[in-house]
Amino acid sequence: MSEVSISDYLLTHLERGGGVPMNRQLYGLLRDGILGGAMLPGLRVPPSRALAVDLAVSRNTVTYAYDQLIAEGYLEARTGDGTYVADTEPDVARLPAAAGDAAEAAESSLLSGRGERLLSGTGASSAQWGAFMPGIPDITRFPNEVWSKLQARHWRRIAPGLLTYGDGAGYQPLREAIAGHLRTARSVNCTAEQVIVTSGTHQSIQLASTLLGEMGDTAWIEDPCYWGTRNVIRSSGLAPLPLPVDEEGMQMPEEALRTPPRFIFVTPSHQYPLGPVMSLARRRLLLEYAARNQVWVIEDDYDSEFRYSGPPLASLQGLDSHERVIYLGTFSKTLFPGLRIGFMVVPSALASRFARANAELFRDGQSFLHAVLADFMHEGHFSSHVRKMRQLYAERLACLQAAIHTELGGIALPSGGDAGLHLALGLPAGANDTAISQAAKSRGILTRPLSAYYAEPSSARPGLMLGYAAVPTERIPVLFGQLAEEIRGQLCHSDTHT
Amino acid sequence: MSEVSISDYLLTHLERGGGVPMNRQLYGLLRDGILGGAMLPGLRVPPSRALAVDLAVSRNTVTYAYDQLIAEGYLEARTGDGTYVADTEPDVARLPAAAGDAAEAAESSLLSGRGERLLSGTGASSAQWGAFMPGIPDITRFPNEVWSKLQARHWRRIAPGLLTYGDGAGYQPLREAIAGHLRTARSVNCTAEQVIVTSGTHQSIQLASTLLGEMGDTAWIEDPCYWGTRNVIRSSGLAPLPLPVDEEGMQMPEEALRTPPRFIFVTPSHQYPLGPVMSLARRRLLLEYAARNQVWVIEDDYDSEFRYSGPPLASLQGLDSHERVIYLGTFSKTLFPGLRIGFMVVPSALASRFARANAELFRDGQSFLHAVLADFMHEGHFSSHVRKMRQLYAERLACLQAAIHTELGGIALPSGGDAGLHLALGLPAGANDTAISQAAKSRGILTRPLSAYYAEPSSARPGLMLGYAAVPTERIPVLFGQLAEEIRGQLCHSDTHT
Repeated sequence: MSEVSISDYLLTHLERGGGVPMNRQLYGLLRDGILGGAMLPGLRVPPSRALAVDLAVSRNTVTYAYDQLIAEGYLEARTGDGTYVADTEPDVARLPAAAGDAAEAAESSLLSGRGERLLSGTGASSAQWGAFMPGIPDITRFPNEVWSKLQARHWRRIAPGLLTYGDGAGYQPLREAIAGHLRTARSVNCTAEQVIVTSGTHQSIQLASTLLGEMGDTAWIEDPCYWGTRNVIRSSGLAPLPLPVDEEGMQMPEEALRTPPRFIFVTPSHQYPLGPVMSLARRRLLLEYAARNQVWVIEDDYDSEFRYSGPPLASLQGLDSHERVIYLGTFSKTLFPGLRIGFMVVPSALASRFARANAELFRDGQSFLHAVLADFMHEGHFSSHVRKMRQLYAERLACLQAAIHTELGGIALPSGGDAGLHLALGLPAGANDTAISQAAKSRGILTRPLSAYYAEPSSARPGLMLGYAAVPTERIPVLFGQLAEEIRGQLCHSDTHT
Repeated sequence: MSEVSISDYLLTHLERGGGVPMNRQLYGLLRDGILGGAMLPGLRVPPSRALAVDLAVSRNTVTYAYDQLIAEGYLEARTGDGTYVADTEPDVARLPAAAGDAAEAAESSLLSGRGERLLSGTGASSAQWGAFMPGIPDITRFPNEVWSKLQARHWRRIAPGLLTYGDGAGYQPLREAIAGHLRTARSVNCTAEQVIVTSGTHQSIQLASTLLGEMGDTAWIEDPCYWGTRNVIRSSGLAPLPLPVDEEGMQMPEEALRTPPRFIFVTPSHQYPLGPVMSLARRRLLLEYAARNQVWVIEDDYDSEFRYSGPPLASLQGLDSHERVIYLGTFSKTLFPGLRIGFMVVPSALASRFARANAELFRDGQSFLHAVLADFMHEGHFSSHVRKMRQLYAERLACLQAAIHTELGGIALPSGGDAGLHLALGLPAGANDTAISQAAKSRGILTRPLSAYYAEPSSARPGLMLGYAAVPTERIPVLFGQLAEEIRGQLCHSDTHT
């Protein structure tokens, strides 16, 4: 292309009266000409005045395009000598030969192996709201006027400290409120200095895994367990070893005890997803074992604020006298999941290191949100909300249990209803819980198949996870009736075909 | 201990008129007696009526304590036969012998090796607000009344969908607003479907590293570079390979080109921390190389909305025609750091997988916050704020450059001031920038030593990172005067001693 043919090329391609301004079009056409190789390095472009005349545009239009192209390195202005196409073409000879057919390789291996594994497991559901989605509190009862008022109070004259990066451990008054709550309600031994505020249990697990474990270290997990625990520890490079759960919680067979792991992840107050409480004998064995073998015990106490039968049970952390327990909690169940605020209690000796590591790995902030939550707790709204919800959820639980008895008595058995926001509905051996869950979903009823929570498919028991906390009490009988119909139909169907 | 001596033990230890309620005290004393071994398994505890008489407390007090201890498994009620201490003592014989002196081992190795490495690097500063902290925008200028109003509008009648777990990719209207901004302002080729909202660049990097890379894969990083990039990719199991930076950006020597890495992390618009723009020739070489060798290019475009000299430069992503670039951005610099909202633009073929993986690894939510930000952008407050701040920061930059010239002309040379919120002040070879930074800190002036950003200590150049965006213009000459005094003093001091 020559100087003259540049004018011609531009004249042919400029769209007058279109949506794109002339200067942007000019820039784009010249850029494409250079990148495509039509305008070779060293070519002189027409002087802006001449090109403006040729194209019948203002000279500003041309200089805007030229300036932009010069700034980005497509053109270079040589003083007193005009403007030239710069030499930016990659020297292909410098590049090593491609390993194979690039397009094909790219197609077949977009994700890494660990990326594929991450996506292959059970996990986050695409639907997050509706009967009987497990793990969701009744967010329509959240006192949003109170929250909004506290929020407005902070934002009216927001302190700069609430808008910049925060302390790695979280906003101090929130740490104090959390420590106070945990001491009273969960018998956790802690001061505010041991509390690290995180964006939820996933972050808490990742922080503990990274700071305390090496790549390849073993972590015992309960089987079945929460999918997030499995995903995060695996993606942190730990090797999970699933141990079966019975009515006393995680089993610890002799064989496993012989090789101490680096971590033991447990849900002692309300095993997730099945529901049993870890027995005292097993708690004491676990703590003694952890102390003797320098094992870190990660206690995930995700929903124990809601206990319906008998007095609340003390945390495992409160029983530990060797500082081997790291306690995890969350506001996802007590307030609302979208808040994304969780917390961990770490041994004093580790507290400042966890705070620093949290800042290094995740940066930190949202103090403006921490401050609102701290006020919400200090002013008593948190306890009062939990108290009210406990009463409401107990009523809904009873209603669901009655509906199960009426509709499926003798066929399906609920368990884990002493606490939390869900129960596990055990189905007869051989039932295909995945098929039932899918069929129910097509009728607009959300459940999760219990078998999907197991790491060892051979030990998986069929069942359905049913959340009742967010379902209006009066709707429970009808909705469960529909689900029961589906269950009976599927069980019957599989009976006739096997 | 016998039934009678239990009464005696309790009588001796109960504190009457103290702060702790009698029923809690009774619970605690019995629990300690059992855990400490004074009350052995199989021991029968006195009937509640009898014990209440012995202790002169109400029977309710005793039954409360007994019920709690039964619920937690310390005691067991045998129907028609009274209440006994349960056998919960760990069978120590089952436990393997401890590997060595437990206490000593625990003391010496609280953190894992990777935990220690994480904490040993340069990183998040404990002070986050004040002259001349780099990377902080002027948060006192943030239009908090506008924000507060938008926030109140959502919270008055908050939609349940904004409070529960969110879509893994973020709130749809926010994704649309971000895509619109990026197309116009950063020449990024994207639709809303390619935008994944994250909690910031750290999370974006972790997501890309985990999904696209295996443990041990090589990642080229710029040397010097942002400490967070180095920390996060290392903690994700990648092996960083630092490549030196010159005035055209990251260098790519023949030797490095011969072994293609899995990732190349670059800051092409405004190299962090030194400031040069990556040249077009190098951009084209990089993209060609990435396409031929299936390398993922991670473009961190952290502060390019603020460009002061010449027109804004197009993103690297916009130049890529092989879908090898993942673009990262953040609101930390344009709005405020504590917001913790960032975003990434991924190739269309990967978008749904990134969204799912984000939910799996981090859970997700804060749609209530995304919704406010989406409104803030759609209603034009975002662009107007950026425009105002660009003008303000340009003024402050000029003021700082003048102060540098006045105070340290010929001694120290600023660079990287074409864009962003900071400049790098180069100091004479041999200057101890860490000592200068510490001395300045003791005078209340915050800087970061440039040498700390280098992975290769041998190639580190001394200098100071100076943030000017958050310093009131009229204070800059005085404050920089104080810093210059410290610099001159330290340089002089090191002259006389070497």
